[in-house]
Amino acid sequence: MANLALGLHGGCGTLDRSLMSEDDWAESRQHIAQALRAGWAVLKADGRAIDAVQATIMVLEDSPHFNAGYGAALTENFDHELDASIMDGATLDAGAVTSIKRVRNPIQAARAVLEGGKAVLLTGAAADQFAEQAGLTMVEPDYFTTQRRIEAVKSLKQRALTGTIAKASEAEKHGTVGAVARDSQGHLAAGTSTGGFNNKPLGRVGDSPIIGAGTYAKDGVCAVSCTGQGEIFIRRVAAYDVAARMIYGGQSLKQASDILVHETLASHGIGAGMIVLGAQGNPLAPYNTLGMYRGWIGTDGRMTVATHHDLYELGDA
Amino acid sequence: MANLALGLHGGCGTLDRSLMSEDDWAESRQHIAQALRAGWAVLKADGRAIDAVQATIMVLEDSPHFNAGYGAALTENFDHELDASIMDGATLDAGAVTSIKRVRNPIQAARAVLEGGKAVLLTGAAADQFAEQAGLTMVEPDYFTTQRRIEAVKSLKQRALTGTIAKASEAEKHGTVGAVARDSQGHLAAGTSTGGFNNKPLGRVGDSPIIGAGTYAKDGVCAVSCTGQGEIFIRRVAAYDVAARMIYGGQSLKQASDILVHETLASHGIGAGMIVLGAQGNPLAPYNTLGMYRGWIGTDGRMTVATHHDLYELGDA
Repeated sequence: MANLALGLHGGCGTLDRSLMSEDDWAESRQHIAQALRAGWAVLKADGRAIDAVQATIMVLEDSPHFNAGYGAALTENFDHELDASIMDGATLDAGAVTSIKRVRNPIQAARAVLEGGKAVLLTGAAADQFAEQAGLTMVEPDYFTTQRRIEAVKSLKQRALTGTIAKASEAEKHGTVGAVARDSQGHLAAGTSTGGFNNKPLGRVGDSPIIGAGTYAKDGVCAVSCTGQGEIFIRRVAAYDVAARMIYGGQSLKQASDILVHETLASHGIGAGMIVLGAQGNPLAPYNTLGMYRGWIGTDGRMTVATHHDLYELGDA
Repeated sequence: MANLALGLHGGCGTLDRSLMSEDDWAESRQHIAQALRAGWAVLKADGRAIDAVQATIMVLEDSPHFNAGYGAALTENFDHELDASIMDGATLDAGAVTSIKRVRNPIQAARAVLEGGKAVLLTGAAADQFAEQAGLTMVEPDYFTTQRRIEAVKSLKQRALTGTIAKASEAEKHGTVGAVARDSQGHLAAGTSTGGFNNKPLGRVGDSPIIGAGTYAKDGVCAVSCTGQGEIFIRRVAAYDVAARMIYGGQSLKQASDILVHETLASHGIGAGMIVLGAQGNPLAPYNTLGMYRGWIGTDGRMTVATHHDLYELGDA
C-alpha cells in the first residue's frame, strides 16, 4: 500500500507580508488547513486520489483568499471567466473547462467533463450548460466577485493609464489553486482551478485548464499542479515536462520540478510555482517568487502550511 | 545552412478509396500540392518557417476537401467552432484560438494571437473580436458550410437514433490540417487547424489548439502537427511527447513518432497520425488509419503527395 499524501498550492502571487493584515494572513492559513483536512478525510477513508484533489480544491474555491471560484480575479470587463482541470493518474482520464461563468465550483465542472467521457475540454457557455445538466450548483456570475478584486482591477486600469503597469504586484498578476494526492491504492491525481489574473483580456485562457501545461498526473511518476504566468507554462508544456524528465531522463521529482521552476520558467523572467507529488514520498512545493500559499500532509500524517519562507508545522492532520 | 523542408497533413480520416469519386480524389491531391507550393515559395525566398507553415495551412483551410476553414466539420447545432494553433520553434512563441466562428483563416487568427504577445490562447467571441481588430478577413459563419458536411451530420444524427453510430467512418469522425517547416536559418515551426469533427458537442475543444497536444515545435529537436481523436492526444500530451522522447530519451524522430502513433495512441483504439520534421532531414508522416492526406517537399526539393498507401512523386516543387 502506498503512503497517503496530499499537497496544495494557493498561487505563487503571495502578497508581501507587510501588505497583508494579520487577520487576512491568519484566515488564509486556516483555509489552507481546512482544504487539506477535506482532502485528507477522503484519503483516510480509502477514497480515490482524484476525489481528494477535488475536495481540497473546492474548499479553496469557496475561500475569498484565493484566485478561484468565490474571490476569483476579474477580467478587463469586471466579470469572471473561470478555468479548471483535473486528471486521474491511474487512467490518464482528464476533464477541463475554460471561460465558465456560472458554476460555483469550477473543479466540479472539470470533473463532470471527465466523467461525461465525451470530451476532455469544454469552453464557454456550452461548458456552463454541460455543468448545469450534470446537476452542479450554479450561481449568478456576480457570486464570485469580491470588493478586493474590484479595487485591484480599478487600480490596474488606473496605473495602465498613468503608465505604471509594470509595478503591478505578483499578487495582482498571478494566483491559482491546485492540489495533488496519492491514495491508498497508490494512485495519483492532480487538479487546478483559477480565475486567471486581474484585468485579464476577455477570452484569454492560461495553463490551468490545459492538461500537460498546468496539470498532469500519471501513476508511478508524478502529479503536478502549476501556478504562475500561464502563457509560459503552455509554451513550456511545464506540467508534463516534469513527468517527461522523470520518465525519459531518469531525473528525480525534486530535480525535475526544481529545474522547471528555477531554470526553465525562471529563464522567461516569470514568477512560477508548483505543487508536485511522486509515486512515493512527500509533496514538494518549489517556487521562485516572494511566497506561495501552500500546504501538505505528508506520509507521516502531519500537516504543514506556509505562505512565505517559514513553514508552520500543525501536527497530526 | 539547414536543409529546407516542408510537410503537411490533411487529416487521418481519409475515406476508403472506393467511396471517393475520381474527381474529388484528384482535386484533393491537387490542393495538397498547391498548399505545399505556397509554403515552399516562402522557404525558397529565405522566408521564416512559421510563415511557410501559415501559408501552407491557409491553402488547406480554403479547400473544401479538408476539415478546416471552408468545408470544416459542423457541430451538433449545424454551425462551426474552429480551432487552430501555431508555434515558432526558434522562440517557443505560440498562438492559438478555440471556438472561433468568423475568421476566414483560423491559422491567421492563431498567428495574430502569437504576434499580439499578450496571450497564447484566446477562446470564443473574444478571439473572433481580437482577430477582427488585428485586421483579418472576417466572414459570415455559414461561409464555412458545405453540403457534404450537412449531409454528414444529418447521417450521423440519423444513425445515432437508430443505434448505428459505431459505423461512422473515420472520415466523418476525424480530420484536421497541419504543417511543419524548416527554413534556411534552420528554424522549425508547426501549425494545426481544424473544425473538430462532424456533429461535435458545442464547446468541445480538441488537441489542435493545444500547444504540446496537437502542435509543437522546438529548434534543434522537431516540429509536430497531429490528427486524430483529440481527447487522447491531450491526455497523452502527444506532440510534446515526441519532442520529450528525443530530448530526454535520446530517441530518433522516427522512433519517437512511430511509438506515439502505433503504440501510445493506438493503445487507446483511436485513429492517429502526425506530420513531423526533425532538425535535419525529410518530414515523416506516420499514421495508423486507412489513409492520411499528406505531402512533403524534401531536402532535395522534390514533392511527394499521398492519400492512402501509395506515394505520388511529383518531381521538383
